[in-house]
Amino acid sequence: MARTNTTTTFATFNESAINQIVDYSAKQNGTGIFAHSLNQLRAETDALLQEPLDVPGQGEAGSYEHNKHKSNYELMDACAKLYLFDGSQQYRDTILSLLLAYAERYLDMPFHEQKNTNPPGRLFHQILNEHMWLCYASLAYNAIQDSLSEADQRTIEDRLFKPMIEMFTVLYGHDFDRIHNHGIWAVAAVGICAIVVGDKETVHKSIYGMAGDGETGGFLAQIAQLFSASGYYIEGPYYHRFAIRPLCFFAEAIHEHYPEVDIYNYKQQVVGRTIMALITTSNPDGTFPALNDSSRTMNIDDEGAKAAMSVYFARYGEDEKLTATVKSQGTVWLSPCSLALCKAVDAYQGEASVRWASVDLQEGDAGERGAQGFLRSKNPAKPVSQAIMAYGQHGMGHGHFDALGIILFADGHEYLREYGYGRWVNVETKFGGRYLDENKTWARQTIAHNTVTVDELCQNNFDHQLADTHFGRGHFFLTDGNIQAMSAFANEHYDGVKMQRSVLLLELDDFEQPLVLDLYKLDSDTEHQYDYAVHYKGQITNTSFDYTSSLTERKALGKANGYQHLLEKARGKTTDKTVVTWLQDQRFHSWVTSAEQGEVIFAQTGANDPSMNLRSEDCFILRQTGSKHLFAATYETHGLFDEGSERCFGAYGQVEAVTVLAHSDEASIVKVSYKAAGTLKALTVCVSNDETKDQNSSHSVSVGNETYSWTGYINTTITTEG
Amino acid sequence: MARTNTTTTFATFNESAINQIVDYSAKQNGTGIFAHSLNQLRAETDALLQEPLDVPGQGEAGSYEHNKHKSNYELMDACAKLYLFDGSQQYRDTILSLLLAYAERYLDMPFHEQKNTNPPGRLFHQILNEHMWLCYASLAYNAIQDSLSEADQRTIEDRLFKPMIEMFTVLYGHDFDRIHNHGIWAVAAVGICAIVVGDKETVHKSIYGMAGDGETGGFLAQIAQLFSASGYYIEGPYYHRFAIRPLCFFAEAIHEHYPEVDIYNYKQQVVGRTIMALITTSNPDGTFPALNDSSRTMNIDDEGAKAAMSVYFARYGEDEKLTATVKSQGTVWLSPCSLALCKAVDAYQGEASVRWASVDLQEGDAGERGAQGFLRSKNPAKPVSQAIMAYGQHGMGHGHFDALGIILFADGHEYLREYGYGRWVNVETKFGGRYLDENKTWARQTIAHNTVTVDELCQNNFDHQLADTHFGRGHFFLTDGNIQAMSAFANEHYDGVKMQRSVLLLELDDFEQPLVLDLYKLDSDTEHQYDYAVHYKGQITNTSFDYTSSLTERKALGKANGYQHLLEKARGKTTDKTVVTWLQDQRFHSWVTSAEQGEVIFAQTGANDPSMNLRSEDCFILRQTGSKHLFAATYETHGLFDEGSERCFGAYGQVEAVTVLAHSDEASIVKVSYKAAGTLKALTVCVSNDETKDQNSSHSVSVGNETYSWTGYINTTITTEG
Repeated sequence: MARTNTTTTFATFNESAINQIVDYSAKQNGTGIFAHSLNQLRAETDALLQEPLDVPGQGEAGSYEHNKHKSNYELMDACAKLYLFDGSQQYRDTILSLLLAYAERYLDMPFHEQKNTNPPGRLFHQILNEHMWLCYASLAYNAIQDSLSEADQRTIEDRLFKPMIEMFTVLYGHDFDRIHNHGIWAVAAVGICAIVVGDKETVHKSIYGMAGDGETGGFLAQIAQLFSASGYYIEGPYYHRFAIRPLCFFAEAIHEHYPEVDIYNYKQQVVGRTIMALITTSNPDGTFPALNDSSRTMNIDDEGAKAAMSVYFARYGEDEKLTATVKSQGTVWLSPCSLALCKAVDAYQGEASVRWASVDLQEGDAGERGAQGFLRSKNPAKPVSQAIMAYGQHGMGHGHFDALGIILFADGHEYLREYGYGRWVNVETKFGGRYLDENKTWARQTIAHNTVTVDELCQNNFDHQLADTHFGRGHFFLTDGNIQAMSAFANEHYDGVKMQRSVLLLELDDFEQPLVLDLYKLDSDTEHQYDYAVHYKGQITNTSFDYTSSLTERKALGKANGYQHLLEKARGKTTDKTVVTWLQDQRFHSWVTSAEQGEVIFAQTGANDPSMNLRSEDCFILRQTGSKHLFAATYETHGLFDEGSERCFGAYGQVEAVTVLAHSDEASIVKVSYKAAGTLKALTVCVSNDETKDQNSSHSVSVGNETYSWTGYINTTITTEG
Repeated sequence: MARTNTTTTFATFNESAINQIVDYSAKQNGTGIFAHSLNQLRAETDALLQEPLDVPGQGEAGSYEHNKHKSNYELMDACAKLYLFDGSQQYRDTILSLLLAYAERYLDMPFHEQKNTNPPGRLFHQILNEHMWLCYASLAYNAIQDSLSEADQRTIEDRLFKPMIEMFTVLYGHDFDRIHNHGIWAVAAVGICAIVVGDKETVHKSIYGMAGDGETGGFLAQIAQLFSASGYYIEGPYYHRFAIRPLCFFAEAIHEHYPEVDIYNYKQQVVGRTIMALITTSNPDGTFPALNDSSRTMNIDDEGAKAAMSVYFARYGEDEKLTATVKSQGTVWLSPCSLALCKAVDAYQGEASVRWASVDLQEGDAGERGAQGFLRSKNPAKPVSQAIMAYGQHGMGHGHFDALGIILFADGHEYLREYGYGRWVNVETKFGGRYLDENKTWARQTIAHNTVTVDELCQNNFDHQLADTHFGRGHFFLTDGNIQAMSAFANEHYDGVKMQRSVLLLELDDFEQPLVLDLYKLDSDTEHQYDYAVHYKGQITNTSFDYTSSLTERKALGKANGYQHLLEKARGKTTDKTVVTWLQDQRFHSWVTSAEQGEVIFAQTGANDPSMNLRSEDCFILRQTGSKHLFAATYETHGLFDEGSERCFGAYGQVEAVTVLAHSDEASIVKVSYKAAGTLKALTVCVSNDETKDQNSSHSVSVGNETYSWTGYINTTITTEG
């Protein structure tokens, strides 16, 4: 049951909403998702409460002290939820003990030494963490506030919360208005704390900025400026899910206490748009794709994502895919605003697996700065295949130089892979868990991505200020029928080289799994070296060409721009019909390409890594020289290898060859030859390369005696050859 | 329901037993494990039956034809079970169609070309597969036999089964008596088929051998000679679980039709002993440890292991650990002999997780040829830690040269790891799925294991005939209390170098997870290079010493004996207190050793691998030079790294140093210094090195002014140092 000794109203929580969700949960006899989530939190928290409380001194990132201050705010947050929804006194007492201990010590702690661009706090080495601490501590204080003596309230507010507010708005006032993911934490933490301690002036600053104009700083400016028209966040999903947590916390508090702001309708419902943009970036396995600096494991179980789904459901209406997602997660964010979602989940009888639709998340205020494109297969009887292409903005300081990079996912795993960031987050013994040098020298470099590197250089010369002024331009994004496709240009990323990439996701009856066709077109007046990279995982099982292995020694492939980290394993000359097949987990993947006079280089990360910071990962590079060039390749997922049961079949794919029939400023025409049930077939694909043409334009291209005519961006035909 | 149109008795199946298990299952209203297993098989089989049947011609290992002949016998087996326990006519008809198709084609197929030492069959490239085919086909035929016309029976028996029997007992008669895991398949397949077709003479040969003496060949000789006194199988668990399948099939048939053989009491119940020996080798995650040639993924879900558990339960009595194991597996072997196990599983309310006790599986007829030792932690509140040491026999042609090699497992994963075999089983594009050259040049070599390689040579000079004459000798195996220990000698594996390894598994209150102490003693009159290898997976997070990385190129570490496959990544001089910590999945592992004047070499497989056959795996080697030397090291599992939730703690272990106080022919004395709750403590361990001493012997060793006195094999004391 909820606590009953309520004497005053809450500052941030709506008491009636709390009672509603507690009543609803009770009516489910403890079998609903809310009760399940609460029970799980109670079990975890009660285990933690077996240990004595500790408020330590200061320590480095990753140290005991750092971790303890973090776990203390997590513990206060857990106790606040348990006290609000369960009412047991021990949780209140725990919060009070911790807050009094912090109030006693806080002002005696000196500031940390500044270690990065983030100003130092007293508890933590950077104020970002101190903001997070304040946000949770304020919410926890608010949960027990009305039960406290006047003296305890004074102690906590005067010696802890008010000094923190002052630090953030005065000492670090110059930083308070910065539009950035850290900035959302700053205004949310300070704003929530100010609501709790009744400091209306500071609340106003937190919402409207120091200048009070709602444009140069504060929450409204943050959410107006950080997100694109589609809701996509420029730094990518990893930082998006981190920013969305304080966004939801503060939006809920504003909704409750400053309804006149009408926060959920602000700027054409940007809160709702950005929530859905985040969730729809998630991979079929629930992880977020590692676009820009990112771990490979962050997923929709993150608190920010969970809070976002509850808020969306409560404030923007029901969504069956969110219901299914939360149902499969099994737990819900413990907030009164989760009531609608809990009811839907408890009543849900549909499929647990969620298939998000294809989506191009456009960037820029009006969608004018390219997009992140996501194609997803539709056949509900088969696992989701997904192709992501990055043709939007660079992503500021966390941006990777990966324009036109693709990531492919099929049958439960990412098989054309992103390395992610060069960082062991929170691992004390890996540079305190911070970004490592190798993040710059490898992870953010163009060659570390599934795109084309020109002349062994990095896009935009690894200049992120320059890169932030450049972006891709979408050409088409087609999602009708069983052949989906996207195409985009990136003409400003390499001097004198225009690039266009077109990716088709084909759900053909002839193939067990969707087939991906990739056309990467380069256009320059002068000759360049073009390196088409395939970052894979697993074991090479066959190639169509001979290669020479680096038997007794492996050398670094280059000296800079990421190449200095690659060790050459083997190298071979390609013929026109080039195949590489590899085995990742239980599936074979075949890459088939047309590659006359090319060279395939097999490589592995590990060179110039003096502190063993890099993961050991494999790739191969198709190197070709030319001015106007088209890379045309298929990616086929096939067969099965189940070592445990020793079953294996389908080690060869069906695609036999990919042939470039023509490529020009107008169009590319490519033939994919494949076998199906003993028959040789040909898939001919025509793709428009002309920016000025649209879905109504007619094309006619002659190749030898044959003329290919079609209307629209693409055309595909399948013929039987024998 | 079971089929009801029974007109004759079965040859191998007991009709009353079938009815009993069907009746029992019906009484459970379809909720029991038998019904669940049958339903699962039915769903899988019905899906397969949507495709047309096909009996193709001949093909290579891994080819469509090869796989189809295999899947055809699996399909017949599934149909036989469904027909017996379910009665539906379509399953009978499928078996009949397939058998008639095979009968029509079989004799027209020429023999394959011989590719290895195994003679070729008509369906498959080696008769092992043909035996397996015959075994399942005979059982399937038997299930429908009484429903067939006389003409169909004649066709199938005269054109298929009898010619196969003749092939195996006449054409390949010279091979029929070979004592080998393939030999069990031969006698079981032929014996079962002979029972089914009523050929008593061949049944006799299958049980008692061609000579009829029960000693030079046949099933009795096989099971008498293949298994050690403990039931351990010389080739290791991977081949053991493969041999135990026909063993169980034929034992059940003999039990039914030749009760006078009293098969389950034969040779002091060797069948029961060998079943339990197999199951008790399994890792805490159900996989079998990769001792000798083996995949790393084979596990107790294998049909042989499942059949074995049912047979044990039916013929040797109930066992709660088997009940729990099968409960957690969720399915049971579909055989009438599973009745007792099904009843126990359906009634079972206990823990699903199984903790096997520590066991040393002695080798040789009287346990005189060493053992495979398994120490397992006991604390039921914590995940199982396990230490395996190989100090038994070599293992014939599949043996690895790994005497005194250890494998460590903690908290859900193997962290001191076996490479397993050099093979991609059944992958057509990897040498037809057969053993690769790298199995010899890497996987079986001493340096590929967690043991000490002397002078960069392989034990027994990679001569398996020689190695089969050598074996380890157990010194002690202690499982009482919270400190378990094993020690063994291997004095014949390197000329002039005697070796002893002692491994302690310590469950101390001061540590979150069990601690492993490893003492590897080498004794020679002349100086040698001793390479102590640690095969790990994951990322190095810290070392106590500086190292120099191979920055721009990595070279092969040697020219032969496996060293030619290792690329050097880095190298550093060690001090007395040497620590290496690595992160595997969510756990840190620290190796702390005393290593004055040593060198640690970090290396990775990949050199001299022209066809990319090797997996890329990491190790480090502590290299020291000496004549009489003791390697003393602890392995500590600690902390947590959960990247998804970005939580990390405990990146440093508690052990600070390992110091060798003394080592001699009599004893080794080692001090482990560690921190616990802010206190520095010392664990002092004394271990007897004298083969002539036992648990009642007194020891007294002076070190400086201190005298260590104890009785028995080991002594441990913990003192507080400050």
